[in-house]
Amino acid sequence: MRTEPPRRAHYRHFLPIATRWMDNDVYGHVNNVVYYSYFDTVINEYLVTRGGLDVAGSPIIGLCVESQCAYVRPVSFPGAVDAGLRVEHLGTSSVRYEIGIFAAGDDAASAHGRFVHVFVDRLSRRPAPLPASIRAALEVLA
Amino acid sequence: MRTEPPRRAHYRHFLPIATRWMDNDVYGHVNNVVYYSYFDTVINEYLVTRGGLDVAGSPIIGLCVESQCAYVRPVSFPGAVDAGLRVEHLGTSSVRYEIGIFAAGDDAASAHGRFVHVFVDRLSRRPAPLPASIRAALEVLA
Amino acid sequence: MRTEPPRRAHYRHFLPIATRWMDNDVYGHVNNVVYYSYFDTVINEYLVTRGGLDVAGSPIIGLCVESQCAYVRPVSFPGAVDAGLRVEHLGTSSVRYEIGIFAAGDDAASAHGRFVHVFVDRLSRRPAPLPASIRAALEVLA
Amino acid sequence: MRTEPPRRAHYRHFLPIATRWMDNDVYGHVNNVVYYSYFDTVINEYLVTRGGLDVAGSPIIGLCVESQCAYVRPVSFPGAVDAGLRVEHLGTSSVRYEIGIFAAGDDAASAHGRFVHVFVDRLSRRPAPLPASIRAALEVLA
Repeated sequence: MRTEPPRRAHYRHFLPIATRWMDNDVYGHVNNVVYYSYFDTVINEYLVTRGGLDVAGSPIIGLCVESQCAYVRPVSFPGAVDAGLRVEHLGTSSVRYEIGIFAAGDDAASAHGRFVHVFVDRLSRRPAPLPASIRAALEVLA
Repeated sequence: MRTEPPRRAHYRHFLPIATRWMDNDVYGHVNNVVYYSYFDTVINEYLVTRGGLDVAGSPIIGLCVESQCAYVRPVSFPGAVDAGLRVEHLGTSSVRYEIGIFAAGDDAASAHGRFVHVFVDRLSRRPAPLPASIRAALEVLA
Repeated sequence: MRTEPPRRAHYRHFLPIATRWMDNDVYGHVNNVVYYSYFDTVINEYLVTRGGLDVAGSPIIGLCVESQCAYVRPVSFPGAVDAGLRVEHLGTSSVRYEIGIFAAGDDAASAHGRFVHVFVDRLSRRPAPLPASIRAALEVLA
Repeated sequence: MRTEPPRRAHYRHFLPIATRWMDNDVYGHVNNVVYYSYFDTVINEYLVTRGGLDVAGSPIIGLCVESQCAYVRPVSFPGAVDAGLRVEHLGTSSVRYEIGIFAAGDDAASAHGRFVHVFVDRLSRRPAPLPASIRAALEVLA
C-alpha cells in the first residue's frame, strides 16, 4: 500500500462504467466487492468486442482462477469510473491482466488489481490454448 | 403485457448505464433483478445531481415503498442501456416515477416499470414534505 | 400500502436466505433491489430441487415477464430472512407466484410481491407448456 | 495455485450463506465477484454479532484496503456454502483475515483468500486503534 498507485498511462484500454446506487455500501462509498465487478466487466467487454468471444457459443471460455485488489481511495455513486486494462502476461492458455479504477478526472488509480483467466474447453473445462482472435486482441494490450 | 411498450418520448431524463458482466444470468441476458438497480440508479442520480440530495447528510431521505417492472425484450452485456425517467405523480411527501430501459438504438422500451419513493426524516423515518430543491427538480420531469 | 401484510400461513414453502453485508445500502437497510434477488432465489431453488429444473440443460426454461414488490418494514444485515412462496395462478405455460420476505421471528411480512414466469423453449424462446415435473411441484404450492 | 487448498480445520468461525440465483453467471457457476461478497459477509457478521460493531453508529469502522481470492473449484446455486474465517494477523489498527469458501460436505476449500481491514475514525477516516470489544473477538480467531 506504500507504493504509488498506477497512472492512466499504465493501461492500454479504458471502459467508462456508471456507478450504481447500490454500489455504495453503508459507509457511503463503493463496496470493496463491486470493484471486482468493474474488473470482469472491462475484461469481458474487451474479449467480446475486440476478441470475438461469443459468450453463448464459443467452444473456449475464460474462467477466473485468481484475483486481487488494492484500494487506495474510495469512489462513490453517482458518476462513472474509468476501468483501465492491460495484459501483464500472456501464456498459452492463461492471461494475467492488470486493472485500474479511476475516478473522473483523476490520473492516479483509486484502486488497482490483477485478474487471471485460464481458458478452458466449455464442455470438459480443461485448459485449452487461447483462440487466435482473442490472442491477437490481447497482444495489443501487452 | 399486451400493450405497446413506452417510447423514448415518454420519458424526460435519460442516463446511460453500462451493463456489467455479472448482470447476465445463466440464461445469457440481464437478470430480472438488475433492472431495478437501473431504476434506482437513474432516480437517485437525478435526485443527487439535480435536486441536491445529499446522501450522507440530508435530513430528508427517500425510501422505496413499492416497485414493479414489466420485461418486454431481453437486454444483454456488453453495451450500455439508457434509463429513461419521468414523474407520474408528485405528492406532498411521495413521488411515483416511471422508468423505461432502452437498448442502444431502440425507440421502444425493453422493460418499463414504476417506483414509489416516500420521503422521510432520516432519524425518525416518518414521512416528511419533499425538500424544495428536490420538488423543483422533480416538477421538471412531471 | 394500507392493507395488512401477509402472514407466514399465506405461503407454502420457505427458504432461509442469509443477508449479506452489501445488501444494505447507504441508509442502513437492505436495498429495494435485493428483495427481488430473494424472490428469484426462492422460486428457482424450488424449481430446481422439487421440480427437476436443470438450469444448464432443460429444454424448457422460465423467464420473468413481470415482478412487483411492496416494502412494509426494512430488514437489515446481519441475519437471515425467510422467503415464503406460494402459487397464485398456474397456467399452461406461465406461473404467477406470490412471495413474502420475513424477518426472523416475525409473522407479518416485511415485504411481499409477485413474480410471473413464462416458460419458453430454451432455443426458440417461444412459450412452451410447463414440463410435467415442474407442474406437479408447483401444484403443491397452489 | 499448485498448493493444496485449506481444509475446514484451518478456520475458526463458520457462517452458512445461501447462494442466490443471480450469483451464477452465464457459465453456470458462482461468479468470481460474488466470493468477495461471501468474504465481507462472514467478516462483518462476526464483527457485529461477536465484536459489538455498530454499523450505524460506531465511532470506529473497518475499511477494506486489500483483498484477494484463489478459485479452486466452482460452486453453484442452489444450495448454501460455508464461509470459514480466521485471523492471520492482528495489528494495532488493522486485521488480516483468511477466508475459505466450502461447498456443503467438502473438507477442502472451493476458494480461499485474504482480506485486510484498516480500522478508521468514522468521520476523519484516519486509522484508529481497534476497539477493545472487536480486538477481544478477533483474538479468538487468531
